Amino acid sequence: MSLRRQTVSEFTATRLSIYLRALASLETEGIRHVSSEAFGRRFDLSPAQIRKDLATFGEFGVRGVGYEVSVLKKHLISILGLGHTRRLVIVGAGRLGQALADSPGFTSAGFAVAALFDNDPKKIGTETRAGIPVHDVEKLSEIVKLGSIAIAVLTVPASAAREVAGRCVEARVKGILNFAPVRLTAPPGVKLKNVDLKIPLETLSFYIQKP
Amino acid sequence: MSLRRQTVSEFTATRLSIYLRALASLETEGIRHVSSEAFGRRFDLSPAQIRKDLATFGEFGVRGVGYEVSVLKKHLISILGLGHTRRLVIVGAGRLGQALADSPGFTSAGFAVAALFDNDPKKIGTETRAGIPVHDVEKLSEIVKLGSIAIAVLTVPASAAREVAGRCVEARVKGILNFAPVRLTAPPGVKLKNVDLKIPLETLSFYIQKP
Repeated sequence: MSLRRQTVSEFTATRLSIYLRALASLETEGIRHVSSEAFGRRFDLSPAQIRKDLATFGEFGVRGVGYEVSVLKKHLISILGLGHTRRLVIVGAGRLGQALADSPGFTSAGFAVAALFDNDPKKIGTETRAGIPVHDVEKLSEIVKLGSIAIAVLTVPASAAREVAGRCVEARVKGILNFAPVRLTAPPGVKLKNVDLKIPLETLSFYIQKP
Repeated sequence: MSLRRQTVSEFTATRLSIYLRALASLETEGIRHVSSEAFGRRFDLSPAQIRKDLATFGEFGVRGVGYEVSVLKKHLISILGLGHTRRLVIVGAGRLGQALADSPGFTSAGFAVAALFDNDPKKIGTETRAGIPVHDVEKLSEIVKLGSIAIAVLTVPASAAREVAGRCVEARVKGILNFAPVRLTAPPGVKLKNVDLKIPLETLSFYIQKP
């Protein structure tokens, strides 16, 4: 693929992930072909947007037939880099970090949590309920390099996030997923994605107002 | 507003929330006007998409001048229903539920957690670190109705999510935000939004692959 991934917007990348879920759902129901129109109607997505998003990565549809569900699903898995399990670390072994570490919704199929890190002596040396170890954050760089770990998930308080992100960059992770309630940026070569848990709450708020 | 909110896609509603953050950020920097082009460039959004999204709700821009930051921000706050603090309940007082309840990133400015609910006798009657009470889930309906609470956030295990969502519907909440790793649906009149924490992880995965 000659495409430069960094030029693809986060909105597009996010939609690819949503398409993948939709395709998995269709496959479960035994549906083998889907048009962008039917795909869009079913999942409340614009057909034009779907065609444009997918065209960025290749020609996957056949005019008059649409997309072959299993084939497009395989392509999306490959495009998203989900063909093999990626190991990640979680920095911040508080309630959110531990909940994510043990959640099947966060790390099943495609991702595995190798370790958590914290600077609290009471947490260091313990394990999550699922048995994932909590290490001293001072060992972050060593463990990331030894384990060839590409992703760090930040679940530290806002006040610590910038410093911890810096440590992750030094440890040579390629991607940082930041759950701390502060917008961070990363140097070139490291992709940083901020997760704002309030956005879905605001989206919900939009729909429940009196007209 | 004559617009039927239910016909607006979740993608659009989510973008409104993202625009609001971007405008707040511009305001902090003292920027008073912004064109859809500059707005888009700065935040990696399509200017055409921005204009289309906003045009759904009114005429906020002036040709050649763009949008007035503070005015558009006020409009978005109103459109998203964030002009007053909404009280919500969290069902499931596990690690994720407690983390969200106490997180300034989840419930500051616009949202306040009134209570958590659980069915675990060890949790019922306790408080989160920030002092939010954990009640028996049997009292959900009573407390939601007494407190005129419109939003329930689900942080229960996948196996319990459907039944708990049913309880929330019976309690007459208007919106449900589901963090359980299972896709739920709700009857007409109740808006249900599923949060999939794996999507940002997959989005990150997209960017960090070898070309």
